[in-house]
Amino acid sequence: MSAKVYLVGAGPGAADLLTLRAARVLERADIVFHDALVAPQTLAIAERATKIAVGKRSGRNSTAQRFINKQLIDAARRHAVVVRLKGGDPMLFGRAQEEIDALTKAGIEFEVVPGVTAACAASAAVGVSLTRRGMARTACLITPRSAEGEPENDWAAGVVAADTAVIYMGAGLSESICATLLARGQAGGTPVAVVENATLPAQRVLLGKLRDLPRIAQEIGPGPAVIILGEVLRQAVDARIFREKGNPRRCAGRM
Amino acid sequence: MSAKVYLVGAGPGAADLLTLRAARVLERADIVFHDALVAPQTLAIAERATKIAVGKRSGRNSTAQRFINKQLIDAARRHAVVVRLKGGDPMLFGRAQEEIDALTKAGIEFEVVPGVTAACAASAAVGVSLTRRGMARTACLITPRSAEGEPENDWAAGVVAADTAVIYMGAGLSESICATLLARGQAGGTPVAVVENATLPAQRVLLGKLRDLPRIAQEIGPGPAVIILGEVLRQAVDARIFREKGNPRRCAGRM
Repeated sequence: MSAKVYLVGAGPGAADLLTLRAARVLERADIVFHDALVAPQTLAIAERATKIAVGKRSGRNSTAQRFINKQLIDAARRHAVVVRLKGGDPMLFGRAQEEIDALTKAGIEFEVVPGVTAACAASAAVGVSLTRRGMARTACLITPRSAEGEPENDWAAGVVAADTAVIYMGAGLSESICATLLARGQAGGTPVAVVENATLPAQRVLLGKLRDLPRIAQEIGPGPAVIILGEVLRQAVDARIFREKGNPRRCAGRM
Repeated sequence: MSAKVYLVGAGPGAADLLTLRAARVLERADIVFHDALVAPQTLAIAERATKIAVGKRSGRNSTAQRFINKQLIDAARRHAVVVRLKGGDPMLFGRAQEEIDALTKAGIEFEVVPGVTAACAASAAVGVSLTRRGMARTACLITPRSAEGEPENDWAAGVVAADTAVIYMGAGLSESICATLLARGQAGGTPVAVVENATLPAQRVLLGKLRDLPRIAQEIGPGPAVIILGEVLRQAVDARIFREKGNPRRCAGRM
């Protein structure tokens, strides 16, 4: 049997941010191994497939990952169309490489179907581009979470060097992110946006400054969230603070 | 009339990497202003819309951008559903912010429909994840192209600080990219991949080392291309060099 494993990006949350290609692969799927956060409507496209929830929200450990790898290989020996459905894009923070390596070693063909990553969804939610002519031409996607046994690498360097940074899986680490970045010389007044549940009905956008990040993060719930940092957000952040403070003089002059 | 302008990501090239939401917006569109590189099949979804090609490949100047902004505003005054269809994701290297600012100033509602960006498509084409546990947890998306009148900003800092870098619109600048990065201390042996026409039938993936980037770039054609740099590519690059050199001793032992 010429089985194939498709590593498919489910997109950032909303079911209609799936690609047409991903939908067609799901329609043909015999079995789907999916992340916890994939929308039920997306899974429903895989009408005739067995669905198996794998993966935890964060802190998924290596043992669990090895078990997923084994499940994919076993499934490819019994089915023609195996789908590994991941939130966002498979090739960003999705542990796809471990699955690709396992499949390759087992001689099983794979194909990656790219998806919309959370950074783009969060940027759309805020209504502010991650890049901007004359202001920002580097956008760095980062996670501060280290794997078990992984050496502490220098994630903060990427934030400091980039014009815009998007931090994945960092909302629960806001205090340490803020402290680390301030210690590295990032200005406390750097504009930030925290986007929770991007593209879902429960979507929330919170704006502020880096020094306030721990306080902002306390306001968000348990949904998946990304943090955007950078000067591109300055206008949006200032407008919010202006609205909150309700400066009547500027109101008269400007609104 | 309650007009709305949709800034829609058309994805990286292949028509079926459009999102379901983008397809539904296109079906309802009265008028579509699209980038030169959008697939004809994608435009065909906008059955009842007037289609207007705007934007040049690269080096599109500010005058042209101001004219696009004006066209969007004028269209929103005559039509209910106006679409600005951009290659990739609108919020990455798409000059969306200039359009958003113009629309906001004119009091016109807008919505961003995110898309699959070229970095994810290129990563899928190579079959190597941009991030990898224990090796890469920062992926920096960059363009070395400066706008007219824009101060030369420090794009190279982002590449050097990130574990993985993806350079957009840089294939024609390979010599200067290579020289700049080597001068900044990036190792000449850093693995690179150049992906031309990602997701299209003419897709090509070229692998090598940073020091060979100018030579590699000579091999690619006029299609849109991105350059990926980083240790995540090491195994893929070594395997290619191994195949090309055809080391018989390692062959006997390993294949």
